[in-house]
Amino acid sequence: MPSRAASFVRPHLRTLHGYVPGEQPKVKGLIKLNTNENPYPPSPQVLQATRQAVDARLRLYPNPSADALRARLARLHACASDRIIVGNGSDELLALATRTFAEPMGSDTARRNPSCATIQYFSPSYSLYSVLAGIHGARALAQPLRADFGLPSVRDLGKSATWDPRAALTLVTTPNAPSGRGYPTSELETLCRSLRGVVILDEAYADFARENAIELALRYPHVMVSRTFSKAYSLCFQRVGYFVGHPDLIHALHTVRDSYNVNGLGQVAALATLSDLPYYRRNFRRIRATRERLRRELTGLGWSVAPSEANFLLARPPGPPAETWLRQLRNRKILVRWFRSPEVSGFLRITVGTDAEADALLAAVRRIQS
Amino acid sequence: MPSRAASFVRPHLRTLHGYVPGEQPKVKGLIKLNTNENPYPPSPQVLQATRQAVDARLRLYPNPSADALRARLARLHACASDRIIVGNGSDELLALATRTFAEPMGSDTARRNPSCATIQYFSPSYSLYSVLAGIHGARALAQPLRADFGLPSVRDLGKSATWDPRAALTLVTTPNAPSGRGYPTSELETLCRSLRGVVILDEAYADFARENAIELALRYPHVMVSRTFSKAYSLCFQRVGYFVGHPDLIHALHTVRDSYNVNGLGQVAALATLSDLPYYRRNFRRIRATRERLRRELTGLGWSVAPSEANFLLARPPGPPAETWLRQLRNRKILVRWFRSPEVSGFLRITVGTDAEADALLAAVRRIQS
Repeated sequence: MPSRAASFVRPHLRTLHGYVPGEQPKVKGLIKLNTNENPYPPSPQVLQATRQAVDARLRLYPNPSADALRARLARLHACASDRIIVGNGSDELLALATRTFAEPMGSDTARRNPSCATIQYFSPSYSLYSVLAGIHGARALAQPLRADFGLPSVRDLGKSATWDPRAALTLVTTPNAPSGRGYPTSELETLCRSLRGVVILDEAYADFARENAIELALRYPHVMVSRTFSKAYSLCFQRVGYFVGHPDLIHALHTVRDSYNVNGLGQVAALATLSDLPYYRRNFRRIRATRERLRRELTGLGWSVAPSEANFLLARPPGPPAETWLRQLRNRKILVRWFRSPEVSGFLRITVGTDAEADALLAAVRRIQS
Repeated sequence: MPSRAASFVRPHLRTLHGYVPGEQPKVKGLIKLNTNENPYPPSPQVLQATRQAVDARLRLYPNPSADALRARLARLHACASDRIIVGNGSDELLALATRTFAEPMGSDTARRNPSCATIQYFSPSYSLYSVLAGIHGARALAQPLRADFGLPSVRDLGKSATWDPRAALTLVTTPNAPSGRGYPTSELETLCRSLRGVVILDEAYADFARENAIELALRYPHVMVSRTFSKAYSLCFQRVGYFVGHPDLIHALHTVRDSYNVNGLGQVAALATLSDLPYYRRNFRRIRATRERLRRELTGLGWSVAPSEANFLLARPPGPPAETWLRQLRNRKILVRWFRSPEVSGFLRITVGTDAEADALLAAVRRIQS
């Protein structure tokens, strides 16, 4: 029975299920291949710069708009810094985008034009999107990807009941998660050109891919690219992500965000990261090499593994259901991720760790299969 | 002329003015008495614990619900940890509360019952509240405080056109900002008992006051208390705040927040803070002593200074308008805060710094007045 207190909560939120992040284990000694963290630590320069910033300045507010970091990112992407907003992880910015660009259902604007309240995305992709649409009270459209996780053609999308070319907001994970499939920029451009609302290309894993689509965010007023320091740059702990896009869209997001949304040490760490990119590029190469070896060896053991341009593999194990594998691997102290949703419930998503972690995973797999 | 990109922004946000935080100067050598930061650094133990946490763990996600910190806060307030949520500063939680407890105007629920879409607060108080109501598209009611910044009686509120006892959300800054006036818990209890929606007692400055109202958040299902590590605990840079309230309200806020909303080093620093409270209590005593001396001396110089239970003073300067004083003090490298809104535009809000900073302010005032 709901308490009196529960009645204070907005009706559509009372039964909503929040996003469930992958397990952050509290016991030591587990091999953690479940949340796509980078197996390599931040560069020594980043650790040193962050440590040195831990002083009396902690009593002061951080720069409210992360100006130094935005200026440095602008140089990196050869654009002006009014095309960049930094967030408390890219998750904050994705949530902010739902509130800035989409109406909740039932509003006057949305009654006249339901597309104004529509947030659409492909399925499977980042499972946060549907939660964000639910929280905002928007209309959510989940458009199935092709069986090989490829993007449907614009022609097919035009005939789909789960796609709206006028949707206020379209979210595209590229490379896709959880499949790892990469999409050529030319294909994304065709998709973006077919859409009339805002498109966010969520490039959380772009540093592990062959291509990225920053140029589309710089060329089209309705296209934004989302990036994060979490995965490629080993900074999950510090919550720093950013969007690149048209100054008017960026300005609106700045208006809606919290005034001091990015913590100071996160700004320091991200800035130091951008001064040591060769260190990170070496890690990208190592992760890609481990990824290809892991894919080859799992395939040799009878697993069906999709090609990946990210730092994880989506792999269908042979024999027992994937959920059983999840438990068996955990018994052997290896954490991987399994999603309940039907398109991917036959798979495990395995983060590409170090070579030693890949060896431990393969050894565990061999023992379970033997 | 608005660009095409601007048309992607929700209509009510296009003309909205975001919250303008106090200046974070980029030049050195200014005496910063404008944003109520604590003049004393975090304790040496906090700096050491934070520095020691800057290692390979930065690559990992932080604990998504700040479990260790919530458990420690629960002990501090003698409650269960399901009564606590930690945020990216209390600003994040205040914004979250608007989205969790109030409907936007124009929704079906709000059309049937406009109180569901009403967010109310006293004027003057924390100027963020009206911005948050505007962003959310809620109906905002600003109820004037008495001329001495006291709370109007429940009887007077009952007759007011700018007050709604059924408002979905009532926000009360206590002690009040920018006046510094403290409110007895018994008076707040009477106010809370007269309200049918959620009440947030925003105690950002409670550590500098005679009383606090945590007991009300533990006793009434519709009352929450907001606290922050920024001001009293010298951690603005790291963005950590929290709410205490009924488990059902806290649960709803957890559902709506970003999954990893509190950065890891912020969690470490806040936890270390709670292990060294005597250090901070010494600082509270010093700040209160400086505050009383500053009030006495400014009064002696012909200023009219309201009694304060916070770490700032609201002071009406003699002679030229307050805005002129703002500029004259800045010319002498002293930053204070001036608010344009008519109830307080005759005043300056002056953060209580160290004794040396108070002396520098008084010397500058004497020179300007001479």
